[in-house]
Amino acid sequence: MRYELYYWPAIQGRGEFVRLALEEAGADYVDVARLPEGEGGGVPALLRLLDDSALALPPYAPPVLKADGTLIAQTANILLFLGPRLALAPPDETGRIWAHQLQLTVTDLVKEVHDTHHPIASGLYYEEQKAEAKRYTADFMARRLPKYLGYFERVLERNPAGPLHMVGSAASYVDTSMFQVIAGLRYAFPLVMKRLEAAHPRLVALHDSVAARPRIAAYLASPRRIAFNEQGIFRHYPELDA
Amino acid sequence: MRYELYYWPAIQGRGEFVRLALEEAGADYVDVARLPEGEGGGVPALLRLLDDSALALPPYAPPVLKADGTLIAQTANILLFLGPRLALAPPDETGRIWAHQLQLTVTDLVKEVHDTHHPIASGLYYEEQKAEAKRYTADFMARRLPKYLGYFERVLERNPAGPLHMVGSAASYVDTSMFQVIAGLRYAFPLVMKRLEAAHPRLVALHDSVAARPRIAAYLASPRRIAFNEQGIFRHYPELDA
Repeated sequence: MRYELYYWPAIQGRGEFVRLALEEAGADYVDVARLPEGEGGGVPALLRLLDDSALALPPYAPPVLKADGTLIAQTANILLFLGPRLALAPPDETGRIWAHQLQLTVTDLVKEVHDTHHPIASGLYYEEQKAEAKRYTADFMARRLPKYLGYFERVLERNPAGPLHMVGSAASYVDTSMFQVIAGLRYAFPLVMKRLEAAHPRLVALHDSVAARPRIAAYLASPRRIAFNEQGIFRHYPELDA
Repeated sequence: MRYELYYWPAIQGRGEFVRLALEEAGADYVDVARLPEGEGGGVPALLRLLDDSALALPPYAPPVLKADGTLIAQTANILLFLGPRLALAPPDETGRIWAHQLQLTVTDLVKEVHDTHHPIASGLYYEEQKAEAKRYTADFMARRLPKYLGYFERVLERNPAGPLHMVGSAASYVDTSMFQVIAGLRYAFPLVMKRLEAAHPRLVALHDSVAARPRIAAYLASPRRIAFNEQGIFRHYPELDA
């Protein structure tokens, strides 16, 4: 079966967590809005889906996955659905709930990262909320980010199967998500991360091992991987990296 | 089986979405931190759980549900787990995914409501971020809240089984969650809600029908229902209600 992913075509954003899972599994998928408009792609294809008044179960926002005619939205929900199908989640319920719980905590962190540059309104430009962004980010760096990273490091440290994976003894979508978090934080806040990484060796090792997995390495080297930029979640504004 | 809920004992907060589902189902549960400290309750009981270094799968934050020795955190994840067990979710996978998707969108809205009074830092007092709160809330009222409420109204309107429930033709935890959202918004922003409600008749009717369900009505009239207050998610600051 071919999965269809609907997400903004010019950013990694929240869709990247889905892309990484699909890529790690070698799944057959099409990133619809990255197709040319002439082939039914582009932003118009995404907007047609979001504005489709015939949908009985309408999504609120992208990413949206189409699988066997069913539409699934909310990043963590998509990964919950894909996990067993892509063999990227534990087979038992307890393990699946745990993986999902961690992914929802990633979701929370990602929202807070977004708010470092958009603390007042997602509909305004960064430049219109720069003063508030500086104040927000100072607290984020001092309290929130260390708390999240300390937590995820602790999850690796306490994993009864060892610190190589977030969940159990095998790769899961939580591993690819943590890779993305570390990669994004390094892009956005290189100075801060240089300081924080020493205290989180297991997270850094996980990032490196995911990056080296053959399918992920091939993906990262391909044109399918959109570069980080200042329209996505992880943005590099040097004035915030302190 | 007796469920144990671990959550802050003096606020509704995120835990209230779990309490409402347990109450609607007439489930056997104990709200641990609301027990007296002498009976193993109070905030110390909650902190003991959160700080327990022996936990292999540690939660990041409350609410946490203990069920059959398993700990589950993240509000929407707890409801995903409880849904089929409490007969408050559809029996089929598509329906369960849809219910969870809606609950995750409630989660997003709840975070944005929280940020109306804490846009800069959850660790600072409201009074320390009042100017930013006013600016944030102005955008929230103008753009975000109408978008969320319009979406949820549309979900009711398009429900193939009719507009009485968020999901299918039976009560689910999404109904009790929407009740809580409307009740909380009315408490926090009575003037704004008075203006918005006319355009969302199905949501108002859903709120009323959930409030009238026998177990919910009994719960709301009991001392188990904590009153809204200015320590929770939904806070009434008149200067923000414009």
